[in-house]
Amino acid sequence: MAKLSDSDNLHQHISKQYDHELIDIRSRVLSLGGLVEEQIEAAVKALVDGDVELAQRVIEDDGKVNSMEVSIDGECTQILALRQPSARDLRLVVVVIKTIIDLERIGDEAKRIARHAIDLKSNSARESQLTELERLAKHVRGLLRAALDAFARMDVDAALKVVQDDKLVDREYESIMRQQISNMMEDPQSTPVCLDIMWMSRSLERIGDRSCNICEYVIYYAKGKNIRHISIEQVEKDLQVE
Amino acid sequence: MAKLSDSDNLHQHISKQYDHELIDIRSRVLSLGGLVEEQIEAAVKALVDGDVELAQRVIEDDGKVNSMEVSIDGECTQILALRQPSARDLRLVVVVIKTIIDLERIGDEAKRIARHAIDLKSNSARESQLTELERLAKHVRGLLRAALDAFARMDVDAALKVVQDDKLVDREYESIMRQQISNMMEDPQSTPVCLDIMWMSRSLERIGDRSCNICEYVIYYAKGKNIRHISIEQVEKDLQVE
Repeated sequence: MAKLSDSDNLHQHISKQYDHELIDIRSRVLSLGGLVEEQIEAAVKALVDGDVELAQRVIEDDGKVNSMEVSIDGECTQILALRQPSARDLRLVVVVIKTIIDLERIGDEAKRIARHAIDLKSNSARESQLTELERLAKHVRGLLRAALDAFARMDVDAALKVVQDDKLVDREYESIMRQQISNMMEDPQSTPVCLDIMWMSRSLERIGDRSCNICEYVIYYAKGKNIRHISIEQVEKDLQVE
Repeated sequence: MAKLSDSDNLHQHISKQYDHELIDIRSRVLSLGGLVEEQIEAAVKALVDGDVELAQRVIEDDGKVNSMEVSIDGECTQILALRQPSARDLRLVVVVIKTIIDLERIGDEAKRIARHAIDLKSNSARESQLTELERLAKHVRGLLRAALDAFARMDVDAALKVVQDDKLVDREYESIMRQQISNMMEDPQSTPVCLDIMWMSRSLERIGDRSCNICEYVIYYAKGKNIRHISIEQVEKDLQVE
């Protein structure tokens, strides 16, 4: 009897440790997400304030983002190898593996914005260009924040809302792009500055897309359905039927 | 004895089926890779020949790329759930999950190129712009082909070579970009065409980067090491020491 009880204890102990590991990777994704948010915020601040030092810090700190990603990825592979998760737990691990790839790439976009911020310091952007870019950045950061919140709660409705809201960001992005094209044609000397603005807008737009990717993973986790490549209207209809 | 033998047979049978599944996901990755290569080739041909119909076919066929990715991804999750692979087999499944994400996104870039090809039909690019873009595309397709070959043979040396060669592609890309900037400044009317050329070059450069990602996964599979974010020189040194 004593032995059986020991084995029960051992089993409980292992299972507790396993639960802890699953909670840990989830919370580490959120920490990585938080760091990446800070990177975007700092890159845009560096741009608006013309703060080259801050931009350089963003570029250096990308190393932290990278090593966090590698470390979480390693932990996920460990869990797959040692715990052989199934059902929901397995989906969680797969979702974490995919989510951190997107977060790391969002970090790369923040680094790109910081590099353009350094370029732009020597040229000079119009006030209106910076204001528009700052507004786009604010909306995109809102999307990423909402995507991370949806991930934290594995909330399907919140995830769907992000995918919807990304359409507004896309429209804002396209309007900035059109504006730059006419600026360049009117004043060819402004071409390098306008291109910097375009590349940064593009990076922000990509961050919006990647936030949507994270939301797709949340829906996959919660519903066991891969909704990539399905229109949002169709997804909403499908989920209502359930 | 008979029972034991039955169980042995069953075990062998299951193991054979499992082996078959692993071989299957590998070969399906290569099929997806082949399809994506064709998409890039067709998109660039559509551009050079001004063939709007071909460009539209590329856009439509992106659906095939997407459904192949979703299907392979589903098969991988099934294998993880039912076979609980470990060691090399586990690494293979993780590598396949990541590789198909990159291949699908390469497909998206091909679709983007096709869209620009349609835009450019109504504007008109210079002969030299098309020639340069075609050359870049040829080199990038070479990278992707080499990455898929490295994947097929899980060949670390071949994978490292792709990462090295991507630097040449990056230089070619930067030269095209610089050229477009001076074109636009000299002749503002050419701005929309030059921007199309820039966006397409950017898509091609991204395809090169994603081919490198695939090579990093190959090295991870073969060596069990995550080499993302480490310089190629360091990786080569590390692998030599082993």
